[in-house]
Amino acid sequence: MSALAELKKRLAAIADLDAAGAVLGWDQETYMPPGAIEARAAQLTTLARLSHEEFIEERMGLLLQETAAELADAPYESDDASLLRVTTRDYERATKIPAELVARIARATSLGQQAWQKARQASDFADFSHHLEEIIELAREKAEALGYDDRIYDPLLTEFEPGMSTALLEEVFADLRDELVPIVEALSSADGGAPAQNMPPPLDRRYGEQAQWDFGIGVMKDFGFDFDRGRQDRSAHPFTTAFAASDVRVTTRIDEGFLPAGLFGTLHECGHGLYEQGVASELGRTPLAGGASLGVHESQSRLWEILVGRSRAFWGHYYPLLRQAFPGKLGDVDVDAFYAAANAVCPSLIRVEADEVTYNLHIMLRFELEKALLEERLAVCDLPDAWNAAMESYLGIVPDNDADGVLQDIHWSMGAIGYFPTYTLGTLMSAQIFARIGEDIPELQEHIGAGEFTHLLAWLQDNIYRHGRKFTANELLDRMGCGELSAEPWLAYIRRKYGELGGVGL
Amino acid sequence: MSALAELKKRLAAIADLDAAGAVLGWDQETYMPPGAIEARAAQLTTLARLSHEEFIEERMGLLLQETAAELADAPYESDDASLLRVTTRDYERATKIPAELVARIARATSLGQQAWQKARQASDFADFSHHLEEIIELAREKAEALGYDDRIYDPLLTEFEPGMSTALLEEVFADLRDELVPIVEALSSADGGAPAQNMPPPLDRRYGEQAQWDFGIGVMKDFGFDFDRGRQDRSAHPFTTAFAASDVRVTTRIDEGFLPAGLFGTLHECGHGLYEQGVASELGRTPLAGGASLGVHESQSRLWEILVGRSRAFWGHYYPLLRQAFPGKLGDVDVDAFYAAANAVCPSLIRVEADEVTYNLHIMLRFELEKALLEERLAVCDLPDAWNAAMESYLGIVPDNDADGVLQDIHWSMGAIGYFPTYTLGTLMSAQIFARIGEDIPELQEHIGAGEFTHLLAWLQDNIYRHGRKFTANELLDRMGCGELSAEPWLAYIRRKYGELGGVGL
Repeated sequence: MSALAELKKRLAAIADLDAAGAVLGWDQETYMPPGAIEARAAQLTTLARLSHEEFIEERMGLLLQETAAELADAPYESDDASLLRVTTRDYERATKIPAELVARIARATSLGQQAWQKARQASDFADFSHHLEEIIELAREKAEALGYDDRIYDPLLTEFEPGMSTALLEEVFADLRDELVPIVEALSSADGGAPAQNMPPPLDRRYGEQAQWDFGIGVMKDFGFDFDRGRQDRSAHPFTTAFAASDVRVTTRIDEGFLPAGLFGTLHECGHGLYEQGVASELGRTPLAGGASLGVHESQSRLWEILVGRSRAFWGHYYPLLRQAFPGKLGDVDVDAFYAAANAVCPSLIRVEADEVTYNLHIMLRFELEKALLEERLAVCDLPDAWNAAMESYLGIVPDNDADGVLQDIHWSMGAIGYFPTYTLGTLMSAQIFARIGEDIPELQEHIGAGEFTHLLAWLQDNIYRHGRKFTANELLDRMGCGELSAEPWLAYIRRKYGELGGVGL
Repeated sequence: MSALAELKKRLAAIADLDAAGAVLGWDQETYMPPGAIEARAAQLTTLARLSHEEFIEERMGLLLQETAAELADAPYESDDASLLRVTTRDYERATKIPAELVARIARATSLGQQAWQKARQASDFADFSHHLEEIIELAREKAEALGYDDRIYDPLLTEFEPGMSTALLEEVFADLRDELVPIVEALSSADGGAPAQNMPPPLDRRYGEQAQWDFGIGVMKDFGFDFDRGRQDRSAHPFTTAFAASDVRVTTRIDEGFLPAGLFGTLHECGHGLYEQGVASELGRTPLAGGASLGVHESQSRLWEILVGRSRAFWGHYYPLLRQAFPGKLGDVDVDAFYAAANAVCPSLIRVEADEVTYNLHIMLRFELEKALLEERLAVCDLPDAWNAAMESYLGIVPDNDADGVLQDIHWSMGAIGYFPTYTLGTLMSAQIFARIGEDIPELQEHIGAGEFTHLLAWLQDNIYRHGRKFTANELLDRMGCGELSAEPWLAYIRRKYGELGGVGL
């Protein structure tokens, strides 16, 4: 057997273990009875341990070396060369972190999540503070173990976004922030500055659960989600997971009193799901199965949810169908009023409830703060004050309590430092990619206005989805002819869209 | 670390792998999209392979020897001594069968199942014949590898029913058959010999799916099934699986045109589920978690489904509730008429649709035939004729085609030789156990008639469920004071029940 063949065989078994872990994770969030939580934790721990042990075996390192010799002449973009490149990257990461550090992180974040839940309920940051101190210290240790040339944030960021750098993010985000703060101010005054908690009518009405579900499934089918190779279920926190390109699970949460949760949440997860279903079957059971990075994944959920699903063209086609789905509910609301309501901009306290414009300010704030913590420019005990000051500066509002402020997200308690910026990266890339598609498919808006998505999906499959993890985000942008990462296409899209919606001074 | 501690640690990881495989198996039958079948097969194969490899490691054999020394003075019935005893039994089985034989069996049964499905659809035994020949030959090889003192059937039987012997089964089944054939004749003439395909009224009416589901869930809750530690879902072929005592999944199949399928199927699987939920938590993540044997498991599904759920006392309480569940549907049918319909006896061709009386004749026929194949007293090519002759002799009817005859069951195509008798073993044990409970709980029938099952469940938990796999069926019967395995208690129950129902000559 060649080294490559043995490598693939071992990687296939590891992929199967990881897929099994993903099935157990999906089940935990969808169907698992509450009493099973302890048994399930043990099962997931064992699967993760075995997968890790199989991956960091010495034999794996040898096989990677021998495969490198076998593939010396393989083209960079070939499946085999990409498999070797990405697996070597993963292997180096996995073997650089000592097992005892992995164990300490697992323990600290397990306790940290419990403490965070209690602290958020009590809205008391102090109870969580020393857990977060330990988590930040462990993240620093992890970054040192992984090593870096420039910034300590780099090796944490690249766990989620391979090939990205802190310096590039700072440059792009600085451009974005300078332009975005005045845009938010203009739009908020334009739409009257309605309090964030109040949905603009008619979104504040009650919409039946089954009709919401059916409408969402209908749009998913139109988008091209293949229900022979995937399904949708309900969960408290919507997510997408894939056990193979032929087995992609999306979840949604329907709230009868809040139409956008189910409606746009479904389209968002569908975007993630389309990506996973589009990975070439030849990459199955290898480390190349799945999305290129969190940022690229998010670019696809945002593209389908927002650039398609919150567009005027989309609602030109779907609003009559939405009216039919909810008889008598929307008779007094015309499509333009509905479209405006679905795109209302208003600074608010909670990231996951934010509109597409203010959302990025929530992200940049978190990026700045976690970077400051990691670089020891900010102490954990000063974090709540720093949070509130940044909210005032970025969004012009300040939370009354820590539950609606610094304690709102689970990420830090899980040790996910370097994760937040991928949300905004995805937003920016979605606009870069969408603008590029518009050049190749000049009739794109007409297609969307006719509920016709086959060309769009085919373009994305061909340029992004089928490649799986073969290329980094930067490589993909380059291959697509999008140029380097940039905030400009997204800002241009926002100015155009909200200008048409009556925004003042755009 | 003591040898016992290391043994437990290794067994816990294996239990987690097996539980993960069970989750994937459950998902496959309940929610998995059809396109995922190939990916899922690979995942399940990897999990099974890793579990097997971890179990048959040399280190495991050493640990078992060292643990035996450590536990020399441990009482037979202690958890630790039982763990050692049962694990040693499993280890010896697992290590006696060469890996290449395991692989040949896996291949032959995989192809065999596909061939069986096609053959059954075409009702053509010839297409399946040479597959079955190979499967029987491999079963013989497996039996030789496992070794036996008396009969070649023994080591296959004990895979499913540890501690049981072919000779004992033959003795008990011979008693049963001699008495059962005339009983069936008497009952069939008594109820007019209605054709098997026609359900007796009112079971032939249509019953709404949701109301059937809700009624079943209500009875499950009354029985004591804990929905915090388990759930029910839908599947084409109802089954029960457990990932832990705190995570027990039962499934059911609701047919609006055939009430008994959902109704009694739900109670049957609930019985399996109560057993799994009752296993002591200390046995979790060890080979002792789960039921003692297939026979003992079946005794519990039959006890709850039939001895409780098809009894006159049960329907005295639940018939008014069933009427409420289906308004206007059963107004013209009194409880005695419903009870008689739910217990109608009639020889029929298909095992899984048979009533409780004729069911055992279906099993004994299969036991005789598979034994004859294995002992080379019957050639596979002669099996269809032998099947039909046995049907005539046991049940007085002969199928028109092989699909309704020798091809109806999946078991042989899966290589499950020695499995069938556990169904009748379960039936016989259920009556032995139920009679014994009647001595300890004289008010048992009154409890059932009041929809009150806490005493019954507590007795079963204390005497059977909590022990998991610690004891064999024979050991459990002995500990409960049931005496040896015997057909008499079941025959007495049948004579009493059907005598009261107007059976002639009982």
